[in-house]
Amino acid sequence: MLPLTSLAADGPRLSPIVAGVWRMAYWGWSAQERLRWIEQSVELGVTSFDHADIYGGYSVEALFGEALALASPSLRQRLQIVSKCGIKLVTPARPEHRIKHYDTTAAHIIASAETSLRALGVERLDLLLVHRPDPLMDADEVAGAFAALRDAGKVAHFGASNFAPATFELLASRFPLSTNQIELHPLHRAPFSDGTLDQLQRLRIRPMIWSPLAGGALLSGDGEAERRVQAALARVAGRHGCTAATVAFAWLLRLPSRPLPVAGSRRIEALRDAVAALQLTLSAQDWAEIWQAAAGRELP
Amino acid sequence: MLPLTSLAADGPRLSPIVAGVWRMAYWGWSAQERLRWIEQSVELGVTSFDHADIYGGYSVEALFGEALALASPSLRQRLQIVSKCGIKLVTPARPEHRIKHYDTTAAHIIASAETSLRALGVERLDLLLVHRPDPLMDADEVAGAFAALRDAGKVAHFGASNFAPATFELLASRFPLSTNQIELHPLHRAPFSDGTLDQLQRLRIRPMIWSPLAGGALLSGDGEAERRVQAALARVAGRHGCTAATVAFAWLLRLPSRPLPVAGSRRIEALRDAVAALQLTLSAQDWAEIWQAAAGRELP
Amino acid sequence: MLPLTSLAADGPRLSPIVAGVWRMAYWGWSAQERLRWIEQSVELGVTSFDHADIYGGYSVEALFGEALALASPSLRQRLQIVSKCGIKLVTPARPEHRIKHYDTTAAHIIASAETSLRALGVERLDLLLVHRPDPLMDADEVAGAFAALRDAGKVAHFGASNFAPATFELLASRFPLSTNQIELHPLHRAPFSDGTLDQLQRLRIRPMIWSPLAGGALLSGDGEAERRVQAALARVAGRHGCTAATVAFAWLLRLPSRPLPVAGSRRIEALRDAVAALQLTLSAQDWAEIWQAAAGRELP
Repeated sequence: MLPLTSLAADGPRLSPIVAGVWRMAYWGWSAQERLRWIEQSVELGVTSFDHADIYGGYSVEALFGEALALASPSLRQRLQIVSKCGIKLVTPARPEHRIKHYDTTAAHIIASAETSLRALGVERLDLLLVHRPDPLMDADEVAGAFAALRDAGKVAHFGASNFAPATFELLASRFPLSTNQIELHPLHRAPFSDGTLDQLQRLRIRPMIWSPLAGGALLSGDGEAERRVQAALARVAGRHGCTAATVAFAWLLRLPSRPLPVAGSRRIEALRDAVAALQLTLSAQDWAEIWQAAAGRELP
Repeated sequence: MLPLTSLAADGPRLSPIVAGVWRMAYWGWSAQERLRWIEQSVELGVTSFDHADIYGGYSVEALFGEALALASPSLRQRLQIVSKCGIKLVTPARPEHRIKHYDTTAAHIIASAETSLRALGVERLDLLLVHRPDPLMDADEVAGAFAALRDAGKVAHFGASNFAPATFELLASRFPLSTNQIELHPLHRAPFSDGTLDQLQRLRIRPMIWSPLAGGALLSGDGEAERRVQAALARVAGRHGCTAATVAFAWLLRLPSRPLPVAGSRRIEALRDAVAALQLTLSAQDWAEIWQAAAGRELP
Repeated sequence: MLPLTSLAADGPRLSPIVAGVWRMAYWGWSAQERLRWIEQSVELGVTSFDHADIYGGYSVEALFGEALALASPSLRQRLQIVSKCGIKLVTPARPEHRIKHYDTTAAHIIASAETSLRALGVERLDLLLVHRPDPLMDADEVAGAFAALRDAGKVAHFGASNFAPATFELLASRFPLSTNQIELHPLHRAPFSDGTLDQLQRLRIRPMIWSPLAGGALLSGDGEAERRVQAALARVAGRHGCTAATVAFAWLLRLPSRPLPVAGSRRIEALRDAVAALQLTLSAQDWAEIWQAAAGRELP
């Protein structure tokens, strides 16, 4: 088992690699197959699962909950569940949405969390994130909803996702946040220069990382930068005797803000590649080689 | 009458819609006509007037003061006056200026405020703003000038205009600020992402908004984005039975930073459109529809 | 003699113009010639010298130390030495570096400072800077290294170079910093708008400025903007009866963040031009004229 690790001083304890289930609705699996995947993840030490109300057009939480209902109580007690709220998608499942928009009213945050709990069949979320910065977000109102969910025992910890530093600072000024879940990989380096990672390190709050493999482009994309990164990952992997995917995860795990990558694949081997990265510490030169390949130029 | 509303915890109380007079010099009106316009604004509840030393080539404050001299004392007591300082324009009225520049020395700020008081014929400004961020601004010196003007009873409250968040934080670290008056409308959305609105909401300081209609482009511009916004405003206006201008003001009033728009038109109907927006709360979907039309893409 | 001036409340005292020696390895001088240049700098009041471990491919500190070994103890006692660490260059002098990268581990910072002390032949650095923001920088570890060097009496004060505001805030949250040494000149105005100068003024920490003459382009470059700046500098210089270089330094010295320019020339006349700027206070109009020439447009 991997030991759980704290996201922040008073934050939740999650597995150092988190399994992302955003595409579970497209895996075409039976509840038993989904349960088997969950069990195999847990066997690898990946006990934390990253959800959002909207994944699979508002269907993934229920698919996961259906599988979980077949599990033993002892398995269920070992899981940590992360979910998100605040986006309203246009989808047949929500006919009242005529345009994609955000909703970070207290009423919606509370209702969304309660819907997530019912669909997942769990009593408490370990972590609930505001999915996107909403231009209409009233931080006091969000803080009020968070406090109500916490006091009702429905959600243990709270955070943000895709927040710019100023938006994170705003919400953190009203309620303690445990993470900012952001996109980060060698082909998306903005968080290195826009203050996102500096802020989180300063606040001793660890980022969660979505799309750690750039949706697969790090391994198989055919753009120019993508091919340069693939070659660099292959060189480093060759030196360390591991897979390119393991190097890509190790590249993130090397950061001083101590991120938790969200690995989002139905393939257990993909989770295994991610977990293997926990044993691999890249040298600063390995790290720079991948950065340089991605940027197409030396570090400045 | 509209109730006055506080810009910040210890800030001035202004009407929720502010009348902007920056073009008054070009209206070609007599003092009596100007007084009539002021009276009509006040009848609508728009009792706050937004000035700057430089408006009309340093002429508007005197034109306004000339009209005000004809008013009854009871009318004059109901007004709130905002002005600005710190820009030095090249104009026949200031032959010593050979190039546009800024001046935020204490001597200039104090002299400019005193000139504004004399031109307006009032004893005190309710609010004085530094008009633009001056690369040569010494924040301690500005704070000293603000304190001197406050202690002399000449200006009640102070703020900034067009300040980036870092510049606002600098000046606010030396003296309490009551607002940052910024440009904001669907075609100028930078303040949503550059930290400006997040900072103000965090500090519980309300923005004032200049150019809320993009100088009229929201209603009559013929660029591609402008026409998309016009169509969206018309659709929303149709659903609510109001004018497109009212929807444009309601789009701003919907923001959690609780902005005060500055409506700058000689047409009393235009002020009426703005005031009507105080009664209109756009849904998040209406709001997103206008954002999406302006951006040419969905919210992310 | 120029009086020394403090970089920050508890910062080091440096001469208001600092001599930069980054190109000393290319001057082709004997140790005696280097000593003569140091003596002449000191005679001008320029007693602070700006180094980095990597200058001249890791050779300049030793060249400087060799000259200093020939100096009288009284001269040596009058100098202030600044150095930097954290970049690892690919160079024959460091065969273990296969790619340019950064290293801000405690082990490297301490070893680099000790190597600098030995090469320079001095017992203490007055100021040590982290040369570039390192994506792998663990601020707690850097702070630990700074504390160890300070407690051992090896380095008196610490700072950063080329840090964005968020990175500076991060490291300053762990250890008191005395400066951020940045590039700034009329053709590189980003620090005016990206928060760098606002942050430093707010924190009452003075910037050091590298490349104050844009590597000479302000005086002799032939790009369009460069020629406009040269013409503006010449006009202002003509009015003040000084050199264009003196005006360029005065343009920086006019800033309220009170920068210390690093003048990097083997020509003593060039240092004299910089020192002369300490006696020249540009008017706001002179300053704006140079800004406008560089930007190709009025101040906004």
